[in-house]
Amino acid sequence: MTRRLPTDERVARVALSRLGEPGSAGIRDAVARWGAVDALDRFVRGSVIQTGVDPERFRAEQLEEDLRHTDQLGARILSPADAEWPAQLRDLPVPPLCLWVRGPIELGPATERSVAIVGARSATAYGTQTAADLAAGLGGRGFAVVSGGAYGIDAAAHRGALAADADTVAVMAGGIDRLYPSSHTQLLGAIAGQGALITEQPPGVAPIGSRFLSRNRIIAALACGTVIVEASLRSGSLNTAKHTEDLHRPIGAVPGPVTSMQSSGCHQWIRDMRAQLVTDSEEVADLMGRLGLDLAPVKRGASRVTDELDPADRALFEALPLRNYAAVDALSHSVNLTQREVLASLGRLEMRRLAQGDGLDGWRKAPPTRPPAGAGGR
Amino acid sequence: MTRRLPTDERVARVALSRLGEPGSAGIRDAVARWGAVDALDRFVRGSVIQTGVDPERFRAEQLEEDLRHTDQLGARILSPADAEWPAQLRDLPVPPLCLWVRGPIELGPATERSVAIVGARSATAYGTQTAADLAAGLGGRGFAVVSGGAYGIDAAAHRGALAADADTVAVMAGGIDRLYPSSHTQLLGAIAGQGALITEQPPGVAPIGSRFLSRNRIIAALACGTVIVEASLRSGSLNTAKHTEDLHRPIGAVPGPVTSMQSSGCHQWIRDMRAQLVTDSEEVADLMGRLGLDLAPVKRGASRVTDELDPADRALFEALPLRNYAAVDALSHSVNLTQREVLASLGRLEMRRLAQGDGLDGWRKAPPTRPPAGAGGR
Repeated sequence: MTRRLPTDERVARVALSRLGEPGSAGIRDAVARWGAVDALDRFVRGSVIQTGVDPERFRAEQLEEDLRHTDQLGARILSPADAEWPAQLRDLPVPPLCLWVRGPIELGPATERSVAIVGARSATAYGTQTAADLAAGLGGRGFAVVSGGAYGIDAAAHRGALAADADTVAVMAGGIDRLYPSSHTQLLGAIAGQGALITEQPPGVAPIGSRFLSRNRIIAALACGTVIVEASLRSGSLNTAKHTEDLHRPIGAVPGPVTSMQSSGCHQWIRDMRAQLVTDSEEVADLMGRLGLDLAPVKRGASRVTDELDPADRALFEALPLRNYAAVDALSHSVNLTQREVLASLGRLEMRRLAQGDGLDGWRKAPPTRPPAGAGGR
Repeated sequence: MTRRLPTDERVARVALSRLGEPGSAGIRDAVARWGAVDALDRFVRGSVIQTGVDPERFRAEQLEEDLRHTDQLGARILSPADAEWPAQLRDLPVPPLCLWVRGPIELGPATERSVAIVGARSATAYGTQTAADLAAGLGGRGFAVVSGGAYGIDAAAHRGALAADADTVAVMAGGIDRLYPSSHTQLLGAIAGQGALITEQPPGVAPIGSRFLSRNRIIAALACGTVIVEASLRSGSLNTAKHTEDLHRPIGAVPGPVTSMQSSGCHQWIRDMRAQLVTDSEEVADLMGRLGLDLAPVKRGASRVTDELDPADRALFEALPLRNYAAVDALSHSVNLTQREVLASLGRLEMRRLAQGDGLDGWRKAPPTRPPAGAGGR
């Protein structure tokens, strides 16, 4: 076992990506405590032992090969210290150690305003057409489209974005050289040429089962929110939606015929109030703008308006219900502030258009503005 | 002007139905104050004057002709004092004065457990098929199907109910002899043969514009809730849904392709949280069971479980949010009871499965039970 260990944080992260799954909590904990260089050293010396982390896997030759191979593939390696690193990935319980990236866009800035569009691989013509239309419409509104490069909805979303000359990012479950599915080589090549292919897996790593689930968390975390276009009740795309939910980001779902099993997962999530029904790109943009993105010019480095709030205002904003109105005394109770403090904070949130009162005692998060529904005679 | 005035309450209501629109507040107010016999007498003698009430229209010959004509048509006239009168019509701000009924079912008992299915006249094949399926499925679950006998969704709903040998009620906008639309003569005849045709309009009255809107309130009030199957943003069926909303009864909406304008009104109402997305008759039954109908055997004379609650418990039940949880102190504030009284009342409501706690301090109306959504691997 070769013992020449890297002294560079980025290179140490590449090496750590080989010791276990990059999405494992064990590696994250060690890196958080000691930094990547020292964590790698401790793992390899055996002074720290973690389930799922195998120090025997470290070989200096493999590390050199990984770096050389990355270059040969025309890819680059991002680490969290880089300016290009997407700040929103920090919201993940286990962020990627580093990212392999192929493509001309600057990943962080390009995805500050972005939507994940996911759904069934066995999509219907209705689903793929809707996904492509949504992606093109969102691209036209300045949103990057994030997806997984898979058959069906994923591919349609990428194609819609490419057709609209919009940024699109495919998050891969395997190494940057392991294009999957293989019949999408041309599509994934086009994405690498105009947007970005990204992965947390080192080159050569196979895209297998659990890595798709792990990959889904990156799709959810990279985008401001997720839209499910078609999904059966057991669709894997609902796993991405679940990650989005865990991140407290908005989820949209496209309805379809009740006779289509490919829409049943969308309908279930709408019924369960886990997703908002969306029918076009304007409604998706409204929904993704809920956290303030569409209320103000997007700022570099501050991905959400709530980033600028002081802790008390931010806590209150997070405590505000999305739909029903909560009374001031209930809010006071839930955020542990006096009613006077809550009222002052509500005033500040209202000025930022983040809170909305019902004119009485109730308050909620301010919804996106929308034209009223018509209802005429019969 | 003939002055022989009726002394019978039911006959006086028939006469009053000719003095102005039966759905007008002026006649309602007079009847509420003096009873129908005395109200008619005051209008005809001119001791009371109301906008929209024309005493010149009273003619004893007309009244006799109306009663004779009703008999000839094989119809009967119900008034609110009759055991067959549907108790749920009392929830209307302006209930019908009386109802002309043609058909073998007993109207009140038959509609205690019922669903209004309404929607676009210019429905798609998807819409009419879905409406017929829903109606048949609900019929199989013991629900009567209420609608308006119109083209499109209405007709499909009636036909679905008839095919399932279920009770179905068509509420007409004109007189019981003015079958509209005329091409539905056969359908409406079948409804009269197996369910009921009903109207608040005397025989011969034409089904014109405003009477359709007035009729819609009876559809909404007769049923436990309303399902919109297809509706454009300006569909008249949304007027029925609006009446349902005013009555605080549940509204379901069936989704469809986002490319179909005939589903746009349904999608808008779901987005606005005014309607719950429903995809089959089981989900509709769940939704209509929210007020307790499906939690206990239906009892004659008590159309809802809440009818059996004492006033404090009923007020608290009505104050409970449907989705989010409300804190006990907020509830105490809104129903003007002490927290101790609220907690005792919540205990009683919980025993009746009408309230649900979040295990902390929050309470809401108990939702219908539903299997959990699946979310598997990808």
